[in-house]
Order: sequence, then C-alpha cells, then structure tokens
Amino acid sequence: MPTTALPALDPQTLQVLAFDIFGTIVDWHGSIAREVSRDFPGIDANAFATAWRAGYKPAMARVMRGEQGWTLIDDLHRGILDEILPRFGLGHLDEARRQHLNRVWHRLDPWPDTAAALRRLRSKYLICTLSNGNLGLLARLSHHGGLAWDCVLSAEVFRAYKPDPATYLGVARVFDVAPQRVMLVAAHHDDLAGARGCGLRTAYIERPLEFGTTRLNDVSPQPGNDLHCVDLHALADRLGCD
Amino acid sequence: MPTTALPALDPQTLQVLAFDIFGTIVDWHGSIAREVSRDFPGIDANAFATAWRAGYKPAMARVMRGEQGWTLIDDLHRGILDEILPRFGLGHLDEARRQHLNRVWHRLDPWPDTAAALRRLRSKYLICTLSNGNLGLLARLSHHGGLAWDCVLSAEVFRAYKPDPATYLGVARVFDVAPQRVMLVAAHHDDLAGARGCGLRTAYIERPLEFGTTRLNDVSPQPGNDLHCVDLHALADRLGCD
Repeated sequence: MPTTALPALDPQTLQVLAFDIFGTIVDWHGSIAREVSRDFPGIDANAFATAWRAGYKPAMARVMRGEQGWTLIDDLHRGILDEILPRFGLGHLDEARRQHLNRVWHRLDPWPDTAAALRRLRSKYLICTLSNGNLGLLARLSHHGGLAWDCVLSAEVFRAYKPDPATYLGVARVFDVAPQRVMLVAAHHDDLAGARGCGLRTAYIERPLEFGTTRLNDVSPQPGNDLHCVDLHALADRLGCD
Repeated sequence: MPTTALPALDPQTLQVLAFDIFGTIVDWHGSIAREVSRDFPGIDANAFATAWRAGYKPAMARVMRGEQGWTLIDDLHRGILDEILPRFGLGHLDEARRQHLNRVWHRLDPWPDTAAALRRLRSKYLICTLSNGNLGLLARLSHHGGLAWDCVLSAEVFRAYKPDPATYLGVARVFDVAPQRVMLVAAHHDDLAGARGCGLRTAYIERPLEFGTTRLNDVSPQPGNDLHCVDLHALADRLGCD
C-alpha cells in the first residue's frame, strides 16, 4: 500500500466515480423499517432492520476466511433473515413470505438527493456502482430508484467483497485507468480507507440517518479523504459539475 | 438443448430483456466509417470498417479454442487493427494514434431509435446488455450514447463469448429467473439461435444498414424467433410498453 499521500485533488484528472450503495446511495434502514412496520404491525421495525444488517459483516467475513464458499449477498441476507425471524416472533413465516421479505433489499429507496445528483455527476464522469450487493440486486435496485449507471460493478464480478483490494483495483482495471483516476464515494470510513490504500481518490458523504433516527450516525470529518461532503449534490459542486 | 418449442409468447411472463450491442444497439459500421473518413481522407473508410469487423469472429474463435488465453475485445480489436493498418496505407501510425483509433469502438453512435425505445422498454422490463464487448467499452459506449441499463453484462463477466451457453444462461442466473423469462434482442440470427438453444425468448431486430449502404443486410424473417421487429420501437409496441 502506498505510504505517501497523493497530491491535492484536481477534478480534471478524475475519470471514474465508483459509488458504495447500501447507506451511501440508498436508505436501507428506513426502507426496511417502513416495509416491516407496514407488513408486520407491532414488530419493532427499527430493531429488525438493525439486527438484519448487523449480521452482514460477520457473514461476509466467514466467506472471506474460507469457512464458506463464495456466496451472493442475497443468500447471506437470507441466512441472517432466517436467524432473526424467531427473535421477532416471525418464525412462522412460510417460504414464499421469506423470499418476498428477503427481496426488500432489491426495493430500497434512494436518498432524496441521489437520482438528481447522479445525473449531474454522470454529465462529467463515468459513474459505476462498487457494492458488495450481487448484480441482480443492484440491477433491481437501480430500476426501482430510476438510477442510470455507466457500469454496474459488484463483489460478484470480482469474487471478493470490499474492502478486499481486488474490488478497488478491479474498477481501475475494468476502465483501464490508473487507480488515482478513480474516486470511491462512500459513507463509510473503512471502505474509503480500503480504497485509499489502493491509490484511489476518496469522497466521504454524510448520511446521518443511515442507522435510523434513534441512533444518529457520527458524520464528523476524519483525516485522509480528498473530499468530505454533506450529500451528493455537494460532491457534484466540488467536482465542478453543472 | 430443448427440442420442443416454447409456448406462444406472453409478454407478461417476461422479466428481463438482454440486448446485443454491436449492430443491434449501435451503428458500428457507420460510426467507424465516419471517423476514419474524417481523420484519414482518401482511405476507403467503408472497406476499412468492414475489414476491422471481419477479423472479429476469427479472433474470438482462437480464444474459445484455447489457442490464446482469455482476451478482452479491446485487445482483440487492437490486434486486428495492427494487422489491417498497412493494407490501408496507415502502417506509419504511432502508438498514441493507434490507441486513439482503437477506442473508436467506445464512441459508436446508437441507431436513431435506440435511446428513446430503451426508455420505453425499461419502463416495463429489466434491461441489460449482453455483449462480447468488455465492460469498460460498454460503459463508455453507454455514456457516449446516453443509454441507461439496469445492468451491464458482458463476455468479460462470464469469461466466455456468445454464442457460448454460459453467456445466455448467465443472464438468467444473474437475475435469478428461469431462462424463458429472459428475451435476447439482437440483429443476428446466430446469436438468437444460441439463446433459443438455452431456452431464452428471442426478438430479431432489422438493421438493414449494419454493414453500410453499399452492402445491404438481408433482414428477411427467419423461423424460430418469437418476434421479428423493424426496430426497437416496434419491439416496445409488441411488448405493450407505453
């Protein structure tokens, strides 16, 4: 990993913006909580969304340690769902209802700024996803939210989850550009640190409500990122997009 | 391969439309001929475009026979370009000009109906590319033409070129649907036959000018396809899109 910092960012040298999806582009917590509270009144929908997401990193870690073969996020989500349903008094749900509920990850709503700001950013840069979500999930999510990418890149393409370097360097390879011509845009410092370690540029996006309104996310600036933006429109402004 | 025909097409059972790109979505011959005749006056630009494309299938066949390792289309295009340049009196072009010319495949113009018809089709179906072009090429092509896919699928994802079954069945696998819920849309009967052999639905699109105006393409109907359409708007009409 490079130990010296890159020179100050010149937006003209950037060619590709790669976006984290869960939390950065779409509001997973709010979308899941809304659907669960509508379909299962009486359940603590915020706690349900939190518990589902909490199983995510441990499940990916088992795959990356080799304890489990390569697994799509749809299947990891389903495994976690089956684990948590009884804890919320929903252990009786049949297969069809479990399948439908698991697909809520394909129906997540974008944040209010997402669609319009992506159009601004696409007018100047190549834009792609870089998500641990599988391709089918990302496609349905983009369709649901009316989002238009130049390319949909996923852990499924690279057979490695972020923050594995194969994912960040994979974006540069797909576009046949040097890593410093790619910027990762994300609401998570660990993801951005992984990208920085591979020589990518980084932009942090504040998403104070990522974990819901009862547990505000700390969005205070941390050193190391090229940009720190309150939302995607602020990113478009900083990069000189119309 | 299934030997019995599928039942008559019901557009409601379709979920995914996968599009061939070179010739079906973009006008490779016209785009290359226009750029070559602008940048190299005096060259027979139509013959140049035809010669470049003629090397394409033999080059893929060498890879699929294992005589050459897995190779991106960008690199196959470059190999063919280096072969044909001397024949057209352009053997003196330096590396930078060759690289720029090879990237004309990233700047191909869509056919006049493409962008608007894709928006109509996307309003009802998931739409994706299924091209032998590599991901970076497809991304830049989509950016250039202002096209919006739900997913960008390529031989690069499946490490096999069409008409290998891994590509057609790969679309169904990525979207987690049965093959008959996917329709391949293409201007080439061999591509459509490959898809049909894997159980996909098929739509033929007439592109009489794919090979230029001096050698009209035979677009007369052939048996076997679910639909035969004069262009992508006709496809949208037949599938009941607004």
